[in-house]
Order: sequence, then structure tokens, then C-alpha cells
Amino acid sequence: MTTRIEQLRAALNGAALDALLVTHPPNIRYLTGLNASAGAALVTRSECTLIVDPRYLQSATLVAQGGSGLRVRLASAGLDAAIAEEIRSAGVQRTAIEAAYLPVARYQRLAALFSDARPHPDAVRQQVEIVPTEHLVERLRVIKDAGEVATLREAAGRLSAVASRAREFVQAGRSESAVAARVDAAVRDAGFERPAFDTIVASGPNSALPHARPTSRILMDGEGVVLDFGGIYDGYCVDLTRTLHLGRPGAGFRRLFRAVEEAHAAAIAAVKPGAYAADIDGAARRVLQRHGLLEAFAHGTGHGLGLEVHEDPRISPLAPPRERVEMGMVFTVEPGAYLPGIGGVRIEDDVVVTESGCELLTNVAVEL
Amino acid sequence: MTTRIEQLRAALNGAALDALLVTHPPNIRYLTGLNASAGAALVTRSECTLIVDPRYLQSATLVAQGGSGLRVRLASAGLDAAIAEEIRSAGVQRTAIEAAYLPVARYQRLAALFSDARPHPDAVRQQVEIVPTEHLVERLRVIKDAGEVATLREAAGRLSAVASRAREFVQAGRSESAVAARVDAAVRDAGFERPAFDTIVASGPNSALPHARPTSRILMDGEGVVLDFGGIYDGYCVDLTRTLHLGRPGAGFRRLFRAVEEAHAAAIAAVKPGAYAADIDGAARRVLQRHGLLEAFAHGTGHGLGLEVHEDPRISPLAPPRERVEMGMVFTVEPGAYLPGIGGVRIEDDVVVTESGCELLTNVAVEL
Repeated sequence: MTTRIEQLRAALNGAALDALLVTHPPNIRYLTGLNASAGAALVTRSECTLIVDPRYLQSATLVAQGGSGLRVRLASAGLDAAIAEEIRSAGVQRTAIEAAYLPVARYQRLAALFSDARPHPDAVRQQVEIVPTEHLVERLRVIKDAGEVATLREAAGRLSAVASRAREFVQAGRSESAVAARVDAAVRDAGFERPAFDTIVASGPNSALPHARPTSRILMDGEGVVLDFGGIYDGYCVDLTRTLHLGRPGAGFRRLFRAVEEAHAAAIAAVKPGAYAADIDGAARRVLQRHGLLEAFAHGTGHGLGLEVHEDPRISPLAPPRERVEMGMVFTVEPGAYLPGIGGVRIEDDVVVTESGCELLTNVAVEL
Repeated sequence: MTTRIEQLRAALNGAALDALLVTHPPNIRYLTGLNASAGAALVTRSECTLIVDPRYLQSATLVAQGGSGLRVRLASAGLDAAIAEEIRSAGVQRTAIEAAYLPVARYQRLAALFSDARPHPDAVRQQVEIVPTEHLVERLRVIKDAGEVATLREAAGRLSAVASRAREFVQAGRSESAVAARVDAAVRDAGFERPAFDTIVASGPNSALPHARPTSRILMDGEGVVLDFGGIYDGYCVDLTRTLHLGRPGAGFRRLFRAVEEAHAAAIAAVKPGAYAADIDGAARRVLQRHGLLEAFAHGTGHGLGLEVHEDPRISPLAPPRERVEMGMVFTVEPGAYLPGIGGVRIEDDVVVTESGCELLTNVAVEL
């Protein structure tokens, strides 16, 4: 954590900022270890202060005792008033805020509080300048350290063990919702804090919708089922999709499945340090195009995994053209093909970029 | 829905606004029926346009066919570019945004797009003014109509049926997480789309934390267990808490339980049209104070329920002093008392304000 805060300080120095007010909970957790749904961390050139309401005082005090030089300020009369007080007492003149998350109304309230703050004793008049910034912490989070990779590897192993039982959950005669409930229970039993997102169980024609939600539709023999689920383990998110077929698949389903399987393998083969994110996506997309399925693949090939289930890097045709993947990045590879009214196939694994290519973190047969 | 949009237009007229750009998904759903995690609705004096990416085109087209005068614009090159185009083509000069939700960075991008927009053919130069606003749609949502009350009543009845089986889930020898998994499965089996929030199962000393998350701690005979769970039914959220005791409770637990039970009854008795929200909270708080438990009640008495699980009104000592409850408001009543290191009790029901008092929507014995 100390290294992370030092890296952030280097970025603040480079931008002539006195401080960053961190309000996005995953960023607070990344920098300090505090797992809280509310609160803030003020990182200045010399200090890092957690500002929390009474609910999180005990947790904040615990992480501060970890010896990482954190201070804790209790917000007894509202979080934003305590932030303003901290800004004042730290003598901050120019603070960054996390513009990707901070709502306009809260920004306006903070700005009013900052200008109301009594002048700092050492200054004639303290004028606090607020600078909207993006990506300051996210840029650090995108490269996982050894400890994070170990956590993600353990999590992906546990999720794979749940996936290997998919045939037990996905049975004809059960509703999509009933299957989702069984998967969610197995995810918790496997040691996860909770599912990382709403489990997708999409059967028959529903499987043609990439973001389907489980319905009361009853699974039937002779149809495909997309099962997409994830878990949060020690704060870190993993994500896995397999497509099953109930009973013997016909030629059409088999063709769709083989094409997606080939696209999935091509994308994984394209992952190595220095590869463009858009090229990894392109590797999957070219395979599907060759099978006449370009239009059927209506989403990106993958997304980063970490303290959030969707984070950088984006492995997509819309990725910034010069964005490369680097060693230590962790992301999903999940091409799919969807035929409206008929059905769809998606295959998703999680990878970490290694020195020479990538390591599959998930480990379960593609065809179940 | 048409009535809702007309009510919103009256508010826009009153504030001399040409339009509201609605970006908060529950507000989009309330006004148009569209259930989507992304997208926007632009409500002008004469039109309401849904702006969606390709994932939600089918759903948006379906709700528009409902005959409510909705238009749909497909955002093929990014949502914000499509919003700017819609603003331009509708000739909007002065649009409100939802400042409580719109992040600063997106606000800045929209502002840049609005000023980039080519001049409207009918105007010399279109200058779009952006006005941060709050509560425009929330003010409508706080009073539930008959259909919404019926949905919430049905949902609360189903949640009560799950709660009546609490003894079946909460058993000594099971971990808190295992109990939570069983409750979540029962919630889905009862017809809910999904749990409304992370189910709380807090046993023994953990029950002294109002916001505890289920852990691997094994439930033991002779201790209390707080079970707090909710469900989303047809989009609407309900929420219920019961506190159980495994084995015969001692005198200390019984005293705590009776005090919270009395506070819960006092708050419910205080609910009627015109009552101050702070007074309903005060009714519960006074009872706990009489029992020497004022400090042990460290949260508000309740929160509104609807398309979100925490919405207005807030039944809390921090509620605006002149805020009254009105007929058709739906909220929780959930006093609690927490003794650090020992344990806690919370009892929560859902009520709708009626002409003369309130109706309990949840319906399950307080003592299980």
C-alpha cells in the first residue's frame, strides 16, 4: 500500500497537485485497504488521511494500525464537512478530485465548503482550487502486483471448480432463475464473499441476448444455455462463461460453438506484453468474420478484472488505438456469437499477461 | 407514465427549463418503463425521447410501442454524442441535468458536445445552457400510485412468506454465509428477480454491527441472529428484518428485544399523513432512550422503498425539520439497538401511509 501511495504522489507531483481527494470506494480500498461503501481518502504530498463516518471508524482504525502511516479523521457532522476541514488543516491549495465518479451536486457542495473554510493560519487567504482528474489511481490498478495475481489465481481456481459442476445446475425442467439460485449458492459455498454480478442463465432464444437476466423460462432438452457468473474473493473479482447444450446438439449449434471456440483460442494466442488491446479483440473478430458471424458478435472481447468486475483494460474495437497490454494486466477473453430468435454461444476465461504471453487463470473444459 | 411525464413538465415549466436530461436508471424506468442499466431520456416540453445503445434498442422500441408517445433514438456512435444530437434537433436552449448522479467528467464532456453542436437551422447560434438540478423526478416518485402500492403489497407478502421460514434457514452449526445463500435462494424461489441488497446474517457479537456482512462464523446455540433481507419484484424493492435467538434467550437478550419491539410499535403508531418524518423517528428513539438505549440506536428509523431500496423519505433525526409524510409514501420502520461486543436486535417492517395512519405491507410475527 505504501508503494501505491508513493506512485500516486509521483503522479500528483507531475501535475503540480497538492492532493487527490479519493472518493471511489475501490480506489480507497486499493490505496489503504479500507473496504467501505462510503468515506474518502485525502492523499497529500506527505500524508494520507482516511475520513469516515462512525460506521467505519473501527475498520479505518484497524487498517491505520497496519503501520502504513495512515491517519484517520472521524466525520461526525457529515463527510463533506470533515473533508473540507482536513483540506484546510493540511494546507492544501490545489486538490484533484475523481471526476469520473464525483457527482456534479456533490462537487458543487464541496466547492462551497472549501471556499467557506476559515483561512489557514499560515496563509493570508486560503483559496482551494479543485482540479477534475481521471485515471490517477486506475492507472496504477491496471497492473496487478504478485499478491493480487495470487489472489486472482486462487479466485479463478475456485470459480472453475464451480463451473465444472455446471451440468449439475443446468438441467432440463428447471427455470433459469432456479439454475441461477443454485449457481449463486455454489459460489458462496466455494468461499466467495458473493457473486460479482447478477448471474446470467440464458436458455434457448434468450441466449441470443448477451446481457440476459434469468427469467422463469423452463430449460428444455435440445437447446443451448449460456451460463455467465462471477465471484468476489478477498475483494477481487473473477468472471467465467460456459455454453452448454441440453441433449445432443444439432449441426447449427455445433457450428456456432466451434466458431466461438476458435475465436476464443485466437484471442488468447494474441495476448502478450506489448500487444495492442484492439489487436487482441481483432484476433477474435477476424475468426468470427471468416465464419460469417461478424455482425453476430456485438460486444467487446474482454474487460479488466480486479477490485471491480469491469475495469481497465478494455479489450475492444473501441479501445484507444495505441493502448497496449502489459505484464501483470488481468482481463477476461469472452467472444460470443448471437443469432436473434435462435440463440447464442459465449466462452469466457480470465488471463494474466506474463513475460511471454499469458497464463489462463480459469481452468475448466471449454466443452462441458 | 403519461401522467408522470406531464407532472415533470409542470415542474420544468415552473423552473423555466426546456428539458430534463434523465440519466439515473431508476428515474428513466419510472418515467418510461424502460429497465436498462444505461441510456438516457430527454423530456422536453412536447416530447420524451429514449436514447439507447444497441443492447437496449429492442426493449426501448417495445416500451415506445406501448403508445405513451415515446420516441426512440439509437446511439450508434456513443450515448453522449446521440444526446447532443437530440438536444440540437429538439432546439433545446436550457436543459436540466440530474446533478445528484451525473459525474463531473461526463458533465464536462456533455457541455463540450453541446457547444460543439452545429447551430440549429432555426437559430442564429444555439447556446445550450446546462442547469444542475436535484429531486425533479424523485419528488414524483416519493408518492406511490395505486399500481405501485399493489406491487409493493404483493412483494411484501412474498417476502413475509420467506421470513416465516426463517427458523428453517437459521440453524446452529451453519455459517452466516450458508444461511445467507439459503435465504437468497428462497427469495428467488418466491418469485423475486433477485435480492434487493446483500443479505445480512449477523450472529452473536456480529449482530452488534448494523451493516454486518455474512462471514464464515458458525451460528451457535444460545445466541441472537439478525436476518435482514430484501427482494426486487417487478422492479420494486421490499426489505424486512427479524431477530431470532437460537435456544432459550437469557434475560439480557429478552430486555433488548422488548425495548426494540416497543420502539418499532411506537414508530408505526406515529405514522399518519402530515406527521413529521423526524417525529416518527423520535417516537422510536424516545422509547429506546427510556430503556437506556439511546446510544445503542446508531441509525435512522427508516427509508423509502420503491424502484430503489433506499429512497425518499428518510425517517431519521437528520430528516429536514419540516418534512412530513404523506398518503402513498412507502417506507421501512426498523429501529434497532446494538451493544458492541455483545449483540444487537433489529425489527423491520414496510408500511404505506393511508388516509388515517398506515398499512403494514409486511406481515409476519415479530417474534419467530
